Formats: sequence, structure tokens, C-alpha cells
Amino acid sequence: MVEQTATRRRPRRSKDAGIAQLPWRRLRNVYRPIEVLSADQIETIHDASLRVLEEQGMEFLDAEARDILKQSGADVEPGGLRVRFDRGLVLESVAKVPPQVTLHSRNPERSLTFGGNHVNFGSVASAPNVSDLDRGRRPGTFDDYCNLLKLVQTFNTVHFLSGYPVEPADLPPTTRHLDALGAALIMTDKVIHGYSLGRERIADAIELVCRARGIDKAQLAKEPGVFSIVNTNSPLRLDVPMLQGLMEMARHGQPVCITPFTLSGAMAPATIAGALTLQNAEALAGIAFIQMVAPGAPAIYGGFTSNVDMKTGAPAFGTPEYVRAAMAGGQLARRYNFPYRSSNACAANAVDGQAAYESQMSIWGAVMGGANMLLHGAGWMEGGLVASFEKFIVDVEMLQMMSEFLQPIEVTEETLGLDAIAEVGPGGHFFGAAHTLARYDHAFYPPILSDWRNFETWREAGAFDTAQRANALWKRAISEYEAPAMDPACKEAVEDFVARRKSEGGVSQA
Amino acid sequence: MVEQTATRRRPRRSKDAGIAQLPWRRLRNVYRPIEVLSADQIETIHDASLRVLEEQGMEFLDAEARDILKQSGADVEPGGLRVRFDRGLVLESVAKVPPQVTLHSRNPERSLTFGGNHVNFGSVASAPNVSDLDRGRRPGTFDDYCNLLKLVQTFNTVHFLSGYPVEPADLPPTTRHLDALGAALIMTDKVIHGYSLGRERIADAIELVCRARGIDKAQLAKEPGVFSIVNTNSPLRLDVPMLQGLMEMARHGQPVCITPFTLSGAMAPATIAGALTLQNAEALAGIAFIQMVAPGAPAIYGGFTSNVDMKTGAPAFGTPEYVRAAMAGGQLARRYNFPYRSSNACAANAVDGQAAYESQMSIWGAVMGGANMLLHGAGWMEGGLVASFEKFIVDVEMLQMMSEFLQPIEVTEETLGLDAIAEVGPGGHFFGAAHTLARYDHAFYPPILSDWRNFETWREAGAFDTAQRANALWKRAISEYEAPAMDPACKEAVEDFVARRKSEGGVSQA
Repeated sequence: MVEQTATRRRPRRSKDAGIAQLPWRRLRNVYRPIEVLSADQIETIHDASLRVLEEQGMEFLDAEARDILKQSGADVEPGGLRVRFDRGLVLESVAKVPPQVTLHSRNPERSLTFGGNHVNFGSVASAPNVSDLDRGRRPGTFDDYCNLLKLVQTFNTVHFLSGYPVEPADLPPTTRHLDALGAALIMTDKVIHGYSLGRERIADAIELVCRARGIDKAQLAKEPGVFSIVNTNSPLRLDVPMLQGLMEMARHGQPVCITPFTLSGAMAPATIAGALTLQNAEALAGIAFIQMVAPGAPAIYGGFTSNVDMKTGAPAFGTPEYVRAAMAGGQLARRYNFPYRSSNACAANAVDGQAAYESQMSIWGAVMGGANMLLHGAGWMEGGLVASFEKFIVDVEMLQMMSEFLQPIEVTEETLGLDAIAEVGPGGHFFGAAHTLARYDHAFYPPILSDWRNFETWREAGAFDTAQRANALWKRAISEYEAPAMDPACKEAVEDFVARRKSEGGVSQA
Repeated sequence: MVEQTATRRRPRRSKDAGIAQLPWRRLRNVYRPIEVLSADQIETIHDASLRVLEEQGMEFLDAEARDILKQSGADVEPGGLRVRFDRGLVLESVAKVPPQVTLHSRNPERSLTFGGNHVNFGSVASAPNVSDLDRGRRPGTFDDYCNLLKLVQTFNTVHFLSGYPVEPADLPPTTRHLDALGAALIMTDKVIHGYSLGRERIADAIELVCRARGIDKAQLAKEPGVFSIVNTNSPLRLDVPMLQGLMEMARHGQPVCITPFTLSGAMAPATIAGALTLQNAEALAGIAFIQMVAPGAPAIYGGFTSNVDMKTGAPAFGTPEYVRAAMAGGQLARRYNFPYRSSNACAANAVDGQAAYESQMSIWGAVMGGANMLLHGAGWMEGGLVASFEKFIVDVEMLQMMSEFLQPIEVTEETLGLDAIAEVGPGGHFFGAAHTLARYDHAFYPPILSDWRNFETWREAGAFDTAQRANALWKRAISEYEAPAMDPACKEAVEDFVARRKSEGGVSQA
């Protein structure tokens, strides 16, 4: 029998001790993205967004940013905040964006490429609250933060840290980023995010990332190691802290993802086409500005367009509008050859059916929309207000399934199984066939959370539903967590910097 | 303002009394299906499946079927059950299948086309048990059956009845189909399914469908009104009752869907490629046979390939293997220009996260696999062992969302919203914009089940999770059910036939 040779790309549970899961792997989406807009429609939105930038322009609240824009040829309103852009200037600027960027971590095995058909999944980020079945919903603390870092490190399908999984609100605002980033760099070996909340926090993040890797800033510029999400204050505004962080990132060659916060019906027109037009205008303006600060600096196009419940104004996610906007966003990003960011978003209040189907819609929108970066991949709930420990595990299962979906079907003489079909014959079964036995432990995706036992067995075992099973899994993951290996000198350098900057009082502004 | 003109294709809640939902609408999938196999890989599987039919052949357990096969040129083993097919004969036969078939119901508005880019969603079918949160899991009865019919009729997104939503096991087997089909034809006005469990049951179904519409069999042949799923007994066997039903259907011009039951690792090789090869071989043999019985009779290619849990043999659904097989099945069906059937399947034991994410995977596999017929669309659980009232509602929400996802984004001067963007300006909001107000009640998909309220409001209202909310909705739907209008003469004709055939004792074999 030669079937054993076909095991090459089959899923295997990780050989690491602990929870059985898929191994760390970088993902490519070899399927053609779903295109919800025609090429003509893309050009129409492209043109409309350039008209917005020409006619309405955008407010840049930071004076230094406006100086740079003026020097670069943008039309800055004298004495005002408004900046209008000739379309030639926009297109010339954004043409300088590298089509892909590789982010390096202190563990070279964890480096990730964003662009092309690369697909990377990130953790939940920026939730003010945490939730679990035992202790309920509550404001996040540094302890919760560290526990979520343990999950990020443990689960291979979470490729990077999207930001603080929960805001460690018990730490002082001026030094919080030091403790949080220090912990992230020591407790995980994955790519991290720095918040563009002023220049200083980004400068600290850059210093910490250099120390964690034992490199200088010149090398970091060549091998970027931290990314930052810059949200526009839609409609048509970029605030001071975001702009200052953006400039610091760009000057050090670190990638910035411009993500307009275009909730259709609230911060954007109540149509998908209108919200996409505004999203595209703001993203182009932000990305053009990055190129004015540092030509050739890496940049990522972020799509976050969703809609509100018109009756209440409540934001909704994973809706049919959201999915189509995520796919259209990918088409727009590819129009300019930008890497593309989307999210795993949901509005559910409980780890239930709604949480799963809204997240599924978001994940399909992202992955088949051609996203290279899936933010909020694991743990995001309630439109971002909660990082849920149980949802984290549900998302890990869903992301593992999507990761496996992206593996091409092997069609070879061995996998066609004609010998097995002949061996078994009409009316037989394949359980005992040699072809089956050779694949016994790796033929199919092994779930981490799904329970496939029959109803009676499941009931006798306690009738635990998905959220309850997830509860047991995250606790096990935290209890079995082991810190990843780290060069002691690098670790000490990180700890020293955190201690020194904390003793100095951290950043000047909360 | 001219924005009002853009309301044309926007979702509207139905004007019917009762639960607010999307209106009845026929669906088209204008997006390009996801192709998980290359054209070369499709040809390799095509070739391998023809080799299976040439070398292994298939068992046809019915003697009349073997006679027809022999007369048509197939190689029937003398004195045996095995039939081998020359590939030329297979391809010549299947080329006679109409690329699409329209199924007519007694309400002309409910007619449905299968083929091309048409997409139709069906109910759960054939479950032995029902389940709801109040009464738990139990064997199905005719009362449950009728209650599920009420849900099928109530929800517009359920286009057709996939079969008995639950087996009414309290009715005698020999007359069960008469009561069940009579009720289906009276309590719903949607397209129905007849079980190919022998010739007589299909003959009764055909007579009942004619009576419900007040037409004769000649007209029924021109305007088919009932379809039947014929499952092969994989591997490579078609049993007597299925073959007799198939022949009766084909002779009356009614569409038969051949669905091989190719559970990878059990009834099919433990590889996706192998299971698809077997699926394709069996489907081609069944469809070729239909054409030998009645050249040009409508036929549908059914894909149901999934995999088992190798450790326990338990069937799994909505897995990464399942999704890719569903999409590959669509590619194979289109290779031959057949209408394509897939399913909304899950293995979950509770109406929880797993139920939702497995069903989502299945729905995406079906819809983006180019399926024209989604069987088991609403209510299917536990790999088909249960019809769940709550899951029915969860599925209705998911199908409505998919239905809305399939609506093309409108890109027009009005939807681009440049005037609104100018009106609102930087830092403003769109809540009060004229562009928003003109779309207040129809801008976005209105959910039936999802709860988008913030956590505090949701908690104060009782913290009902998705399954609990679904529980309230199905009860409301049943309590508000109204029978669809029906010509009294047709209704009486149906009732008369049911009564007469019951008094005769029904079919000869249970």
C-alpha cells in the first residue's frame, strides 16, 4: 500500500502537550474571493470616494499632520482643519504602498505576511469588559488581560494579538501600555499591536519590540514587528492621538491599518454603497497621508462597515449588509493592491446561536472577501464591548474549521481510492478498509469543541452545551499554559524598559 | 430628494399579519460559485467515477430496473444484481437531462425553478424525532408533523417541503403517506416531496398532487409538481423500493434527485476525493437510469458527502470536509449541466453555538457551491435524527440572512449618498440626514430572532438566549397560523382520495 504518502498535508493534532488542536500554520486562500460588486461598480465607488476627498475633504486635527499634507500638495484650509485632496495626489501617494508586508515576531516561526492571498487570524482586541460563565460580565483587569494572553499563546489558530484582548482598566492610563505590552511580549511570542494613542505610546511600543527581539530600530524598519489600527472618526475626521501615533509608526516603517468606522446609518450613509464610498474615501486619505509622512511605508486597508438597527441606533454585526461590505471592501483594497483587514464581529449578548451565526457570517465575509488580517478573530462579543472567554474557544473552533476549509483537496491516485472502492464492493463499508485504516488518525478535521456523540451519550455525559464545553476548555488552557521560550537578555531588556518608563511616570497624557 | 426611488429592491417586512419577516421571494445567486477543485481535478474525478462504473458497476436490486438497463445497453451480470456501464452509455444518457426544472405548486406564486443560478430553501425532512425546549426530545407524531407544516407554511424563506418534517410514527405505515401528503397539500401551498418507497406511494403522491391542483397527469408531466429524493445505499447499490419509486416518478415526468449517501470513512473512502468519486459514480448511474426509463425526464444531482468521526464512526456535518465536498459537488453537477441539491446539516445535540456554526458552514457550502435546492434548510439537528422547533427558527433567521446576502448591492447616484456626506460633514452623524430618514424602515435587513439590544437592556428583559427566543417565536407562529386559500373542489378531491385509499388499506407493503 502506498496510501501513507498521502498524509503530507492532512491535519494532525499538535504534538505539543495540552489540548489537542491543529498545529501552527500560515494560511493561504487559494480560492477566488467572492465578488459582490462588478468592476464597473468598483470604479463608480472609487470615483465617488475621490469626489468626496476633492469636494468635502477630511479634517486632520493635528497641526503637524496638516503641515505635512500642505507640503505634499494637499489643499489645507487656511486656519482650519479641513484638507481637500486632488485625486492625482491621492492616487500617486497610495501607489507607493507595498502590496504586502511581513511582520516579524521575537519567535521567527511566528512571522506573518499580510497581502496577496495570505490569511492571518488575530485575537479579540480593545474590549472594556470580560465575561465568562462563572463570574459573569465585568470590567476587565490586568489579571483578565493576562489570562486572555495565555489563550492567545496557547491556540495555534490565533496568529497574532489584535491589541489588548481586554482593556486592563485597573492599571493607570499613563503606564498601562507599558505593563500591557511588556506582558504581551513576554507571555506570547506572537506579532503584537500598538495603540496609536499619541506619539509616546507608539515610541514605547517600538522600543519594547526592539528589546524583545534584541534588534535596533534600523533593523525593525527593515523587519517590522508591530502594527497599529488607526480608526478614523467617521465621518471624515482623523484625531490628534491617532495622527501622532500614525506618524510615529510610519517614520519607523511599521505598518498602519487605516480602518474607517463607517457604521451605516450612524457614522455613514444608510446604504452599503454610501458607507463603502465614505470608507474608501477615508481609507485612501489616511493611506495617502502615511505615504506623505514616509513614502513606501507599509499600510493596510481596513474595512469595518456595518449597519445600525435603525429603530434604536444599536450597532449590528455579521449582518447581510456587513458581509457584503466586507467582501466589497476586499475588492476595493485589491483595486489599489493594498493588504486588507476585516473582522470577526458579532452583536450577541450570550455565547449562543446568534453569537455563532453572526461570527460565521463575519468570518465568511472576511475570508472569502480576501482579507489578509482578521481582527477580533477570537473572543469578540457585544459589538466589541466584551471579551468572552467562552466565545474565544467557540471562535478557535470556527477559525480552525475555516483554516481547514482553506486546505486544497488532494486529488491523487491514492486519494481517489479506486482500490478501496473495489475492495469494499457494493453494500459493504469502509471502516475496516486498508485505505481507511491508513488514515485512521488524520483523515478528517478533529474538532476541539464540537460534540459529535449521539444524543443519549451526550445526555448521559451531562448534556453540556457549546458554551459549557468552552468553559471547561479555556480553564484547562489557562491552567496548562506555559510561557514561550525567550532569550533571558531580551526579557530583561523588556522588563528594564517597562520599569524605567513606569518610574518616569509613563506618557505625558492619559 | 429622489432617494425614495431606491426602495425598489430593499427588504421589507411582509405586509401579512403575524411575525414580521422577509416577503416570499425567489432567489438567484448572482455571485460566482466558490471552486475548490481545478478543472483538471474535476476531470480526474469524472474519469475515476466512470472507471468505477465500468469496472465495479453498481447493484440494482430491482429486476424490472435491470431489464431496462439491459435493454438500454448496460452490462447486466447474468443472474446477478451487478450492472456495469460503458462510459459512452453513461454520458449519452445523462446528456438528456434538462438543465433546469420548474416545480409547480397549487399556488402558482409558489412555483420554483431548480437549475441555473436559482436557489431554493426547503424544510427539515425525515427526522424520526422532534424536540422543543418545553417537551424535550421525543418520537414524532402526526400532531408534531402538522405543527411543523404550520411553520413551513408561515415562513416565507422556506420555499418548499423537503419531505415529512418529522416522521408521523403514530400513523400506520401503509396509509401514513396518505394522511401526511393530504395534510401537506392542504395545510401548505408549497412544493412537496414524495418518498420513493415503492411504486404505490409515488403513484398516490402523483394522484394527490393532480387533485390538489385540479389537473390531469398529462398536465402534471408538463408542469411537474412533486420531487423525490432517491438515496443510493452507498456504496454502489440502489434498492428495490427506491428504484420502483424512481421509475414511477420518471414515467410521470416528475424530477428525481439522486443523492448518494457517501459518508467518508463509512460508506465511502476516507478521503474527500474518494468520497466524491463514489458520489459522482452513483449519481451518474442513477441519473443515467432515469434517462433510460424516460428520456428527458427531469433529474437533480444530490451531494451529501460528509465524514464520520473516525474514532467512533459517528457522522459529522458542517465540517471543513463537508463544506469542500458540497462546493466540489456543485462543480461536478455543473460539469454535466445538472440542477444541484445540497443540505443544511449539523450534528449538534442542542440548539447552541455548535448547531449554528455547523449549519452556517453547511449553508455557505451549499449556496456558494451553487446549490439550487437546499434540503433540510430549517429544523434539522443531530445528523437528521431530530426536527427541532427552535432550530427551525434559528435556521429561518440564517436563511433570511443568506437570502439578503444574495441581493446585489445597489450602486446608483442615490445610494452613493454624496449629498448626505456633504450635508453631514466631518464629525457629524447620519441619524437625522434626509438620506437616512428616507430609508428609515427598509434600509437594512430586519432580523427575526437576533437581539441587538445592549447587554443591560437584554438582561433586564430576561436575558433570553437564542434558543429561548426561538421558542417563543415558533409558538407564536403556530398560534397565528392560517391555512392558505384552496379551491374547495380541489380540497375535497384530495380528502376523498385520502379517505378512499385509506379505506382500501393503503399500500401493499409497509
